[in-house]
Amino acid sequence: MLGLMQSQQLLISSLIDFAERHHGEGEIVSRRVEGDIHRCTYRDIAKRSRKVANALDGLHLAFGDRVATLAWNGYRHLELYFGVSGSGKVLHTLNPRLHPDQVVWIANHSQDQVLCFDMTFLPIVKAVHARCTTIKHYIALCDADQLPIDTGIPGLQSYEAWIAKQPETFTWPEFDENSASSMCYTSGTTGNPKAALYSHRSTILHAWASGMPDALNMSARDSVLPVVPMFHVNAWGLPYSAAMTGAKMVFPGPAMDGKSIYDLIENEKVTFAAGVPTVWQMLLGHMQQGSLRFSTLTRTVIGGSACPPAMITAFNDIYGVEVLHAWGMTEMSPLGTVCTLKNKHAGMDSEQKMAVRMKQGRGIYGVDMKIVDESGAELPWDGKAFGDLLVKGPWVIKEYYKGEGGSPLVNGWFPTGDVATIDSDGYMQITDRSKDVIKSGGEWISSIDVENIAMAHPAVAMAACVGMKHPKWDERPIVVVVKKPGAEVSREELLAFFEGKTAKWQIPDDVVFVDAIPLGATGKMQKTKLRETLKDYQLPTL
Amino acid sequence: MLGLMQSQQLLISSLIDFAERHHGEGEIVSRRVEGDIHRCTYRDIAKRSRKVANALDGLHLAFGDRVATLAWNGYRHLELYFGVSGSGKVLHTLNPRLHPDQVVWIANHSQDQVLCFDMTFLPIVKAVHARCTTIKHYIALCDADQLPIDTGIPGLQSYEAWIAKQPETFTWPEFDENSASSMCYTSGTTGNPKAALYSHRSTILHAWASGMPDALNMSARDSVLPVVPMFHVNAWGLPYSAAMTGAKMVFPGPAMDGKSIYDLIENEKVTFAAGVPTVWQMLLGHMQQGSLRFSTLTRTVIGGSACPPAMITAFNDIYGVEVLHAWGMTEMSPLGTVCTLKNKHAGMDSEQKMAVRMKQGRGIYGVDMKIVDESGAELPWDGKAFGDLLVKGPWVIKEYYKGEGGSPLVNGWFPTGDVATIDSDGYMQITDRSKDVIKSGGEWISSIDVENIAMAHPAVAMAACVGMKHPKWDERPIVVVVKKPGAEVSREELLAFFEGKTAKWQIPDDVVFVDAIPLGATGKMQKTKLRETLKDYQLPTL
Repeated sequence: MLGLMQSQQLLISSLIDFAERHHGEGEIVSRRVEGDIHRCTYRDIAKRSRKVANALDGLHLAFGDRVATLAWNGYRHLELYFGVSGSGKVLHTLNPRLHPDQVVWIANHSQDQVLCFDMTFLPIVKAVHARCTTIKHYIALCDADQLPIDTGIPGLQSYEAWIAKQPETFTWPEFDENSASSMCYTSGTTGNPKAALYSHRSTILHAWASGMPDALNMSARDSVLPVVPMFHVNAWGLPYSAAMTGAKMVFPGPAMDGKSIYDLIENEKVTFAAGVPTVWQMLLGHMQQGSLRFSTLTRTVIGGSACPPAMITAFNDIYGVEVLHAWGMTEMSPLGTVCTLKNKHAGMDSEQKMAVRMKQGRGIYGVDMKIVDESGAELPWDGKAFGDLLVKGPWVIKEYYKGEGGSPLVNGWFPTGDVATIDSDGYMQITDRSKDVIKSGGEWISSIDVENIAMAHPAVAMAACVGMKHPKWDERPIVVVVKKPGAEVSREELLAFFEGKTAKWQIPDDVVFVDAIPLGATGKMQKTKLRETLKDYQLPTL
Repeated sequence: MLGLMQSQQLLISSLIDFAERHHGEGEIVSRRVEGDIHRCTYRDIAKRSRKVANALDGLHLAFGDRVATLAWNGYRHLELYFGVSGSGKVLHTLNPRLHPDQVVWIANHSQDQVLCFDMTFLPIVKAVHARCTTIKHYIALCDADQLPIDTGIPGLQSYEAWIAKQPETFTWPEFDENSASSMCYTSGTTGNPKAALYSHRSTILHAWASGMPDALNMSARDSVLPVVPMFHVNAWGLPYSAAMTGAKMVFPGPAMDGKSIYDLIENEKVTFAAGVPTVWQMLLGHMQQGSLRFSTLTRTVIGGSACPPAMITAFNDIYGVEVLHAWGMTEMSPLGTVCTLKNKHAGMDSEQKMAVRMKQGRGIYGVDMKIVDESGAELPWDGKAFGDLLVKGPWVIKEYYKGEGGSPLVNGWFPTGDVATIDSDGYMQITDRSKDVIKSGGEWISSIDVENIAMAHPAVAMAACVGMKHPKWDERPIVVVVKKPGAEVSREELLAFFEGKTAKWQIPDDVVFVDAIPLGATGKMQKTKLRETLKDYQLPTL
């Protein structure tokens, strides 16, 4: 017997409809590529999203056709989020930090029909357009009078001219909520890039789940700053959850430096900011230098990679900002866990609470997770046993776009490639990426644990722990370190710093000082590249 | 093109699975019919829900068969919530406050196969069982040794004996999320009772929506007291949203008096309580008498009927408890609006904020609403224009069970029977029930406005405004008043109290003092009955 409730498909268009109707005056503030601050409202975004939809209709795209963006976080990008997906096309957010060859490969693989790009990325588009075989329309996200001439890009139009002539009314189509809404490629460590193809349903469910008090806790009283790029897993879904709640949105554009971010937080009364550790490091550096304080920021979510404990402590103890440690991945829309406390922690002192906050957090309803040993058998949730972390849920992929890489699921579960523990309260802690874990004498050493200790040293700006072949122990860890500008620390001092902080056999065999550690397009350390640069390295203990 | 996300049906069984796995030690505290306090955990509830599912299998029920309850809020009722719906049967929560004849009519109409009842309701079951033609199994929610003998109820079993012999393991079936999960009859003012038939999908979506920060704001740090009965629209969905978030639950059982509720709030560190105004009035009365204060309660949601402003002020100003004014109905699962503030209200003083809080609130994402005039044309959101309130959304009914009463929808919108204004920020205010509004000289007088003014008088315990036929004005309002014990106020004093608080022509023509105002099964004033008792009344102005 079926229930007798109204059947209403969960569509992305309903988010912007809701925001317009119930939060029409809600502010959208953007630092533009042009450098100035732009202000508009959800009402404006809604109107202009409908103009985008009409403009796309004018290009005679088919349902499900891909519309790509190469763009920073800003209001025009937001309009494309709703205009493209809302009208039944698929928003493909290209990552501008990729090598142009990769951009070409990805654009051709996804068969993009349209490319909308910020002027910052004109050089990339110039370099790639001749090789992008499916793109028929190029739209520069600028005013008509700023459209560059003689670019060689065929039929290039300015976004503002493109939508100016369109009507403000558009009836969003109704269709199956399982239809594709957007896609995001993940670089992957082996093989070609692979894309997660999100659906309207997965996007709406993820927006609800991520907005909950135990996740990102988003309300109409928030002013939200997504520093995490809209080209990286849809800025963790914040454009959707903000529209769902009517939160003010503040977009940083291309300016991610400490001063720009700090000024935006203060001027726009930001209450909640989201980003990866590397960006927060720049922000904290700027604040330390100027002895600055936050006046409205109360919480920040940190994800993308494990957050150094020193950063959580700094935010909490010095600046009174609650750090929400979060974990997820492109294949998970991305949210899987957020570290918020439970009722039972209420009576704990701040040190005990901090110990909980160091973990990646507990699963939010909708995502289930488990850890398994090498045979696939489930391991206990005791905070000690560690194994491969698997997840499932309605916003986790079942396969990659075009079946790339075959079926990733193991009995319905998606293997995350992370190694983790889960404690009896359900708090998960990543101990390593399965490919980064160091196997020494039959035991596993967590590269993340080693890095966290090194990062706690005042002279260390960045640290990467990698395993080196060893004839007796199989592998032994070394730590590659970038020193803070002007700071000094010797190999011996740093190794001594590890003593008492971890088991003796887990202390690295060596320290290698470098000027920089290679970072990937999403700001994560690229250990594969780092290992290449160390190919002639020899352990001192050999 | 479809997205490539995991397809996972949204089923109620996933809520208790999640609570067991991620919040296994979360507490469930119940004041029992027996009078004592019972403690268990989500882990226990999960285990016993599976025993219920196995026990139901033993009764050879079909998918979709109705299992009825006549029960207070408590852990056994919670187990039935998950065990019945989780296993694919439909939970039918009968309202024990109805007349036995109505119980019979409803049980036969819904074709209940099983009836589980608290011992409090043994007299009802004794009175009705011979006439309940479809119920084959009677389960008394008690221990085996407390099963009464010689009841005449055929095959009566104790719940504890019934589930004791069942295994703790059960694989929840997977099925279409649109399948019926539970049902609730609404008394209706005309015709027979009609039932809303909820689905698994509507229940899960409603749980997400109602848990959001701008709705009931539920987290794992909460201790939730649903005073609103589980037989009334599933206690506003709190059993589901609490399991979804791992919140501690505190059940009051049959004891709704001020002292019992207060003691439970203090002893169980309740942070959030939900109920109708009449219950809170008893609580506030108890606190006033004893000069008591709350130590943990920070917010309360008040719904079911418009909350007297004096009560919102008392909670806020005297007890520091945030009152969330909410509005919904059985046909809406029930949540439609909650009154939480927006970013723009941050700078307002407490009086201005209070003016916002007096309204029923703004729509939560998922529910859309509009007000229309008599021709069905949409009215502006200006806070002044009032008209019939219509709603739609995935947790709003499309029709009643068995098509009772025909198709209620008007162009896809459900007419709520309320008259309301909506302001430019989306805050809705009920001005009246469409059947209670008083039409005087071509103008409408809100019975609720009149009642709110009367209720603000210190001597008034309860007030009902009804319209009386008038040859010249069509109708004129009078106010029927119950005085507080020991308090005195004269007709003239009360009428004078209205002066300056409303337009002269909206002041009632008369005051009628009574000992009690008839209340319905859900604690709402029954104006139909009240009008019957006033059938010989004559306006003094005639």
